[in-house]
This record gives sequence, C-alpha cells and structure tokens, in this order.
Amino acid sequence: MRLETLFLAATVSLSLASSVWAFEPLTIIDQGSFSAGGTVITEAGTFDNKAPLNSAGQTFHGDHAYSFYQVPEAPRELPLVLWHGAFQSGKSWETTADGREGFQTLMLRRHFAVHTIDQPRRGKAGNSTVAAEVKPTAYDQLFFDMFRIGQWPNYFDNVQFDTSEDTLIEFLRSVTPNTGAFDPEVVSDGVSALIDKIGPSILVTHSQAGGPGWLTAIKNANVKAVISYEPGSGYVFPENEMPEPISGSAGTLKPEPVSAEDFAKLTEIPIVVYYGDNIPEDPTDDFGLDNWRTRLAMARLWVAAINRHGGDATLVHLPEQGIHGNTHFLFSDLNNQQIADLATAWIEEKGLGGMAAK
Amino acid sequence: MRLETLFLAATVSLSLASSVWAFEPLTIIDQGSFSAGGTVITEAGTFDNKAPLNSAGQTFHGDHAYSFYQVPEAPRELPLVLWHGAFQSGKSWETTADGREGFQTLMLRRHFAVHTIDQPRRGKAGNSTVAAEVKPTAYDQLFFDMFRIGQWPNYFDNVQFDTSEDTLIEFLRSVTPNTGAFDPEVVSDGVSALIDKIGPSILVTHSQAGGPGWLTAIKNANVKAVISYEPGSGYVFPENEMPEPISGSAGTLKPEPVSAEDFAKLTEIPIVVYYGDNIPEDPTDDFGLDNWRTRLAMARLWVAAINRHGGDATLVHLPEQGIHGNTHFLFSDLNNQQIADLATAWIEEKGLGGMAAK
Repeated sequence: MRLETLFLAATVSLSLASSVWAFEPLTIIDQGSFSAGGTVITEAGTFDNKAPLNSAGQTFHGDHAYSFYQVPEAPRELPLVLWHGAFQSGKSWETTADGREGFQTLMLRRHFAVHTIDQPRRGKAGNSTVAAEVKPTAYDQLFFDMFRIGQWPNYFDNVQFDTSEDTLIEFLRSVTPNTGAFDPEVVSDGVSALIDKIGPSILVTHSQAGGPGWLTAIKNANVKAVISYEPGSGYVFPENEMPEPISGSAGTLKPEPVSAEDFAKLTEIPIVVYYGDNIPEDPTDDFGLDNWRTRLAMARLWVAAINRHGGDATLVHLPEQGIHGNTHFLFSDLNNQQIADLATAWIEEKGLGGMAAK
Repeated sequence: MRLETLFLAATVSLSLASSVWAFEPLTIIDQGSFSAGGTVITEAGTFDNKAPLNSAGQTFHGDHAYSFYQVPEAPRELPLVLWHGAFQSGKSWETTADGREGFQTLMLRRHFAVHTIDQPRRGKAGNSTVAAEVKPTAYDQLFFDMFRIGQWPNYFDNVQFDTSEDTLIEFLRSVTPNTGAFDPEVVSDGVSALIDKIGPSILVTHSQAGGPGWLTAIKNANVKAVISYEPGSGYVFPENEMPEPISGSAGTLKPEPVSAEDFAKLTEIPIVVYYGDNIPEDPTDDFGLDNWRTRLAMARLWVAAINRHGGDATLVHLPEQGIHGNTHFLFSDLNNQQIADLATAWIEEKGLGGMAAK
C-alpha cells in the first residue's frame, strides 16, 4: 500500500473509526543527528591541492558512532540510547517489518527522548579505520532460525511475528553488514563517546550489543541503567569468579573476564535482561534454538553474580511471566506495546523515569 | 555541549530570550522507515537447520534502498525524497555539522513530508549483492577542496560554512563508504522502488545522485519534479545530440547518452539545478575548483537541451542571484534557511506545493 494512501487512510480513519491504524500525532521538541568518538588516521607526506586523489598528507575520520535523536513533549530526564545488534543498524528500532510503530516511536510516546544509534563500522557510521572484505553472505534462513521466528521454513505456532511474505522480506532487508571487523572495544568506545555528549541516560542494548553494553556502562558513569534484550555474548564476570563455559550445538559460550573493580561498576546501576520464548531448556541439535539455551543459562549465572556482589540485576524470561511467542527481536514483535510498557514500568520502578526539570 | 544541557538551554531561552537557538516544536503526524527494491541471491543446495552457518540453500536480500520518513502537520500533497551523494548517507540532510537544523527539518517546517534515504549499498541499506573491499582512504582534504569549503588549509573568505574545528570534525564524520560498487542502474532502480511505494513526489538529489536522479525520473512517472543540488555527473542527453566532453584539471566530464524517448520524459516535469559559489569561470589547475567549472558548464548545455526540447529546466547559479559563499553542500550551509525558501518558492511557482486533501 502506498504510503500516500496509508496517510489518507489514516486521516479518514480518525473520522470513520475504521480498522485502519491511525498514527497519533507526536510533538517533537528537538530532533537531529550527530556523531562522536572515533579516531583519525593521518597519511604521511604533504597534501597537494592540485592532486587531491593522492592520499599523502590527508586524514581519515573513522570508528565514530552515529545517533539520530528525538525529544518528545514533556520528556523524562533520562533519554534512552538504543543500540542494535549484529547485522543490524538503528533500523532495528524503527517501523516494524509489518508496518507498526517501532520501539523508537513507542518510547517517544512514553515521554522518553530516544537516541537511535549506528555503532562504529555500521550503517551511517560506516567509516572504519581497518579494511574489510564485505561479501554477500546468504544467511536469511540462519536469521530466521537464530532469531526464533521459527525453524525454517516453519513459523512457531505462537510466534509474535507476522507471517506474511512481505513482512519477512522487509525484515530481511534490515540486514546490513560491518564495514570493518566487529571489535567490542571500538564499539563501546564509540558509544561511550556518544554518551559523553548525551549525558546521563539509559542504555538499551540488543543481542551482540549486550556485551559491549556492559563495557560501555563500565567505562561511562553516565550510563544510569541498562536494559538488555537477549544479549548474545560478552557476559563479563570478575576474573577470579568465572563460571565454566557452556557448550552446545551452536558452539561454546565463554564468559568474559574483567577486573573486580570493573565488575563492581555494574553493581552500581539497575540492570534488566529480557529473553523471549521458544528457548529450549534441554540441549538440542537445532542450532538456532540451542544458541539461546546457552545464553539464557549464562544470563542466569551472570544476574546471580551481579546480585551476589550487591548489584540490582533482574532476569525476565517472558514465558515465565505468561508472555508467549517472543522472538529474539522482542521490541519489534507483535506485542511490542507490551514490551515497551514493561521497560517503562521497570524504569519507573527503579526511580529513573522522572520528568526533566523545566 | 551536552545535548541535555542544550535541551535545557533551549527551554530556558524561550523565556529569557537568550541567544541560544531554540528548536520550535514540530508536530509529526506520521514517521517511520521502510525499504524497497533490490534483488535476492539464492545459494544452490539445501538449507540445514542443524548447520545454518552453511549458506547452501539460503537467500540474501541486497541492493534495496532505505527511507526514513516524517509527515508534518497539514502536509503538502507531494513529499520530498532526499537523495545523498558520494561518500554520504541520509545524514547529509540531517543536523548541520555546526549544530543547526538540517534540510530535513527545515522542509518539514515548510509542510513537506520528507523521506531521507540511503541508496543501495550505503548506510543502513548496506547489503550489496556484489562483494567489495572497503578500505580507509584518507580523503578529508580532497573533500574540503572538492566541496569548496576552501582550498586546504584555508577556508574561502566568504564561505557559508562554520570555520570552527569541531564543525569540520563533525562534517568529516558524515563520510561513509559504499559497501558494494556504485552502479547508477542499481541505485536508480532502488530509489525508483522506494518511489513506487511513496507515490507522486519531488526528488531532491545531491552531487553523485544527480545523474541517477535523472534515470529515476525517466523510470518512474511518480517523480513529478526534480531539484538537483550540484549534480556531479551523469548529465544525460539524447544519443544523437551529445555535446563534446568538457576537460579540465579534474579530468574529463562526459555526457551520458539516452534514447530520445527517455530524454523526452525529462521534458515533462519541472527541473531546477542549483550551483553555489567559488566556481571558477576559467580553467584552473586547482582540482577541487575546476571539477565544478566543468560541471557548471555541462549543466548550462543540459538545461538548454531540456528547454530546446520543450521542457522546463532552470539553472540557478547562486552568486548570479546575489547569494554568495555556498559550498557544494548548499542545503546545509549557514544560509540553508534561504536555500530551503528558494526550493519552496520554486515548488510553489511550479504549482506543486499544494496541500494534501483532507
């Protein structure tokens, strides 16, 4: 359906109370984009204005991060910083593949300022200080399985994901590659630099951003809380309290060591970790599922370690709360309004949802 | 300055009438993102759920385009589709490097719905069906010269670009690479697919997008007008009416042949081409400047050809209109409010600025 038609249909629906979903107007009191962090490569030699295709004496800015932000009316004091996962960009948080409002807009409506970022070496922040071969790798079915939309070619019966072909196509077009090798230190440095500019904020991570998210919270005291959706790796433990790696058909998940001093920083801020549905309890040779069995098991150990050290970490396994069918992309699933409400309630419960001073 | 502080300062300024620039609230009646176009690669073989890192039997979606759109209150009927140039993404149109509202926001305030796109193989639309080596190439000083900010290391005396170091750093961080080789057919197909979804609209191109912009207008009757900011190449002429190439110290600019039938399509819609300042009239061995001497010269021949064939093309060389100092990035220059007003006035003059039906 043309967006023009959708717009007209939405307008009409306001008066006819039709079943067409109507976008409630949003008042935005600030929006824009900016970048932060990164490094500068300087080539040896002298720049020649008459031969500027020669890089001698020129510079290159790379490994910075990018943010597009919006501030709603009557915003809460702490903005959200939304950090995508592997093979994704800020688009993860935008309009869902089946055309509903994305988490970005849902949280603006809940009065959060929202920063939707691209990490270094991804999306609009594509300048990388290291070279890379970028190849078209056919992984659509890996994603379908790994993201627990189903077991290709079958959707899970209860899945919170629209099963039309158009939706799947739109979802698969959100995939976008690294322009330089993924490096947890590079991405956490870049996001930390964004957060230096943003100030006190709540970090919201997804999947591969989970691990670097902990590193960013360790590096930057402006991170006042972390909400992590299905962290995929990088669970950090004090180096003398490392649990055993957890193995399965998707490989071995290793804990990551940090100093006791660094780990302690993660006990100073509230943290919540969400996992969705269809994660097996017992080992299975279905790679896409067993991957999450090991992650969820490690998450339990990690939350326990944080709390044992005096922190405030909560693990929410949604099916245990009676919320079924969520995929790896909880925040864009069919029930994402509910997911947004849960996040909001948690933030408020932790006393971090207060309004900004006027 | 932290954005939080900027926000508070902006709020304060409303009452204290301080010199801090305050963002006037924007009412957005729809926003989101989507992708369109592209192709699917299917690997031979059969997908194995138990070994999904093996691409056999899997698919890859690539070469699509991406759009982030916003619709303001009381929108005009025709949205704008903003198409970035080489080494850029939609960020070109966002907040300026010195922190002012970007063309995206300026045109929302002028009641245009705005689509800010990433072309295939760039930014958030990074999946490319062809492999590429992405290398950090030091070209910051090339860009400084080529974009006519100055002649490195000197800014032009009259330049419409803030000369602080922070601004230049922010500007250079907007650079982002191709993830696959630039291909005018691929990008114009992708943008045409976006425009199939968007419907009737006004295409706004910059630099390297100029040429593919003409191709998109030829392919898609939904393109009702084109505004082109300093097209860099791809000036299409009827294949039996090709002007001589124009040579200079920046190389030889060749016209591109199209069929008479295709060229005729460009005579059916109003077109305006803008060029800024500091473009030499006489050949010079300053590469960054002579590049534009040849482009402006070709633009004059092209506009004449369009009009000779019964079209409606206008060339606006801003210094001739008494507007001085504009760089290659007119729409983000210090006088971008004026640039936005000019575009709006032209659209209205062409009868394409009417409001959408309620």
